[in-house]
Amino acid sequence: MKPILVFQTDFTYKEGAVCAMYGVVKSVDRELEIMDGTHEIPQYDIWSASYRLYQSMRFWPAGTIFVSVVDPGVGTERKPCVALTADGYTVVSPDNGSLTHLKQWVGIRQVREIDQSVNRLGGKNTEGVSVFHGRDLFGYCAARLASGIITYEQVGPEYPVSEIVAFPILEPALADGKVAGIFEINDPNFGNLWTNIPRELFAQAGFNYGDHLRTVIRHTGKVIFDQKVLFHQSFGYAQKGEPIIYNNELMHIGLAVNQGSFCRQYRVDFGPDWQVEFER
Amino acid sequence: MKPILVFQTDFTYKEGAVCAMYGVVKSVDRELEIMDGTHEIPQYDIWSASYRLYQSMRFWPAGTIFVSVVDPGVGTERKPCVALTADGYTVVSPDNGSLTHLKQWVGIRQVREIDQSVNRLGGKNTEGVSVFHGRDLFGYCAARLASGIITYEQVGPEYPVSEIVAFPILEPALADGKVAGIFEINDPNFGNLWTNIPRELFAQAGFNYGDHLRTVIRHTGKVIFDQKVLFHQSFGYAQKGEPIIYNNELMHIGLAVNQGSFCRQYRVDFGPDWQVEFER
Amino acid sequence: MKPILVFQTDFTYKEGAVCAMYGVVKSVDRELEIMDGTHEIPQYDIWSASYRLYQSMRFWPAGTIFVSVVDPGVGTERKPCVALTADGYTVVSPDNGSLTHLKQWVGIRQVREIDQSVNRLGGKNTEGVSVFHGRDLFGYCAARLASGIITYEQVGPEYPVSEIVAFPILEPALADGKVAGIFEINDPNFGNLWTNIPRELFAQAGFNYGDHLRTVIRHTGKVIFDQKVLFHQSFGYAQKGEPIIYNNELMHIGLAVNQGSFCRQYRVDFGPDWQVEFER
Repeated sequence: MKPILVFQTDFTYKEGAVCAMYGVVKSVDRELEIMDGTHEIPQYDIWSASYRLYQSMRFWPAGTIFVSVVDPGVGTERKPCVALTADGYTVVSPDNGSLTHLKQWVGIRQVREIDQSVNRLGGKNTEGVSVFHGRDLFGYCAARLASGIITYEQVGPEYPVSEIVAFPILEPALADGKVAGIFEINDPNFGNLWTNIPRELFAQAGFNYGDHLRTVIRHTGKVIFDQKVLFHQSFGYAQKGEPIIYNNELMHIGLAVNQGSFCRQYRVDFGPDWQVEFER
Repeated sequence: MKPILVFQTDFTYKEGAVCAMYGVVKSVDRELEIMDGTHEIPQYDIWSASYRLYQSMRFWPAGTIFVSVVDPGVGTERKPCVALTADGYTVVSPDNGSLTHLKQWVGIRQVREIDQSVNRLGGKNTEGVSVFHGRDLFGYCAARLASGIITYEQVGPEYPVSEIVAFPILEPALADGKVAGIFEINDPNFGNLWTNIPRELFAQAGFNYGDHLRTVIRHTGKVIFDQKVLFHQSFGYAQKGEPIIYNNELMHIGLAVNQGSFCRQYRVDFGPDWQVEFER
Repeated sequence: MKPILVFQTDFTYKEGAVCAMYGVVKSVDRELEIMDGTHEIPQYDIWSASYRLYQSMRFWPAGTIFVSVVDPGVGTERKPCVALTADGYTVVSPDNGSLTHLKQWVGIRQVREIDQSVNRLGGKNTEGVSVFHGRDLFGYCAARLASGIITYEQVGPEYPVSEIVAFPILEPALADGKVAGIFEINDPNFGNLWTNIPRELFAQAGFNYGDHLRTVIRHTGKVIFDQKVLFHQSFGYAQKGEPIIYNNELMHIGLAVNQGSFCRQYRVDFGPDWQVEFER
């Protein structure tokens, strides 16, 4: 059976771009199965693209091909690539940092640069076009790979995994009964914030469901939030409108407001400048 | 042929949650067909979830399985359930009011509580996670059911249909030539409001296309709108920007503004506090 | 193999309309393959509907059936139709201007009015409903056509292609070293503006990548923007936040801001009132 293609981009569905891209896939091979990952990655936000791949990939059948196109440098020098992950997935993406989390936490087994001289959509509809690699290069090449028209080796030349562009990832720490980390990403729908702290670290620190933990959030060192917050297994253990610390869906520690938005209520965002510290 | 799975949630496509949930379904059985109902139910709005099931279900092939996840109480006591409707569909949902309209207007034939000890996604990716039943419980259980891995009886123990959580539904009335009801729901895209008044009641009242009906809208008793409004078969019979009474797509009476938003133009919303009355 | 159905509307996914429409298709023939073109055409914006068909259609396999429902006149006199394009696609749409670009730039080979007496969804769920032709007429008729239940001739009576409703399309011009045109459409996500000027006209004018072209934008004659702007092959050749002239994905000249929105930054919109002129 041919692998599923899962797409994620920052294109939105507001105009015809996704439609044209999917048309190319279906024109390569009518049988291919296309699934929307998301087309609402924040514009040019390579970090979020990287995180969303990491977040959802593991739940798909092995062999699934992910096409990720958050590509502010389209048509410039960044490499278009196809990577194989250590756990058996394929990712087609610009090599611009979009593979950061997979490289660090899953592992990349091999990576190849897409040879545009053979794996780019040609013909009268794309002459001189350098601005839509989602359609003309990534989608087209992924479809040919999924269909079996080309092998992985025919994608283009291999290059060292160590050369894959990756942003720095900060590690959490446990010391003196305090667990410290950063807000690595948010849930932009519900307004939850997800730390880089795995649940094991809370277990090591001896934090249990039902504990009220002193939670200090700093932005570039300045304290933004300093409260005792309940740690429990789901949102509904807090009163409506109250904050809660919980194990998120990726087994990391998150902060939420029950039926509210932690991001908006406390004006907190994510990134390396946003430190968070928990202690009993 | 295996039944289609139609999903509706309040997750949006802004991050990777829908993608992970669909990955679980495809990992259970690659052949399963997934369709988006909508992932833009207003957050925590169980009433809208209930109405959207009622609105769209009847148009699908019998046997279709709907997965509805608007679940502010995820991980707390509300029952996860699978219900069979009187007209031959299956609904997988938290039993939190999401079945209100189906229970009242279609009928529920049988309901079972999902046994989490056998029908929850296990494995290293979901340990200790209590916040994503769309992925780990509802989606996973629905996929197993659609695939034939489990029978309906294997979902879990049956419980009385009468115990299904339902919100009160108000009935419309005809008296003294006046038809009275409430705004039961809106169309959040076009800004139309849909009453709980079936077209038959207008027929019984003797209202005909072309009539101008006195329309009084009250919010908690206070008059918000009192105008003669044209009753006709579609929006275009009113001037652009003018209000119109029409038969909506579910054969209930609606209020719209031609190429405008009734909700915004007249600051009207829906719910039991919003009464509407029509007379000639 | 049965043709794919690609849908575009202004319904959004905010409520159950798309879901009900797709349910009808699947009830006609479970095997039919449905793809989202977009459901986020701006409300009532027939011009955008027309452009999006033109933009994406060519990338799909020949034979694909497009269903376009931007239909402010639903239930009034405009004709529901099915058109065959010169390049082998089928379009199901209200004949309200939605075929403008296809008629002018691709060509319509034949058009038929849908006979509502035989090709409208009947039954107890649609009695007296005149407001949802996406579900009851366009989607239903397209599904029957795709499934082979009806032939193209059975759609309804043919009428002259010359009678198809079309908006005027303005032609670009080259004179005295100046290339003049209009902004024909935008990219509402990234905020780029697309002119009606094909890249060939730039070539004829002798404009080359790397040139800085004087760019004058007028709204109803009044100058809104007058700057030298770099012409190059992709966004990244400009500094972040700076404007750029580029060949867009349809081989027309576009204006963008690198990682910004040209529309918002310079308060420019599209339509016949928005002229643009380039010279060296």
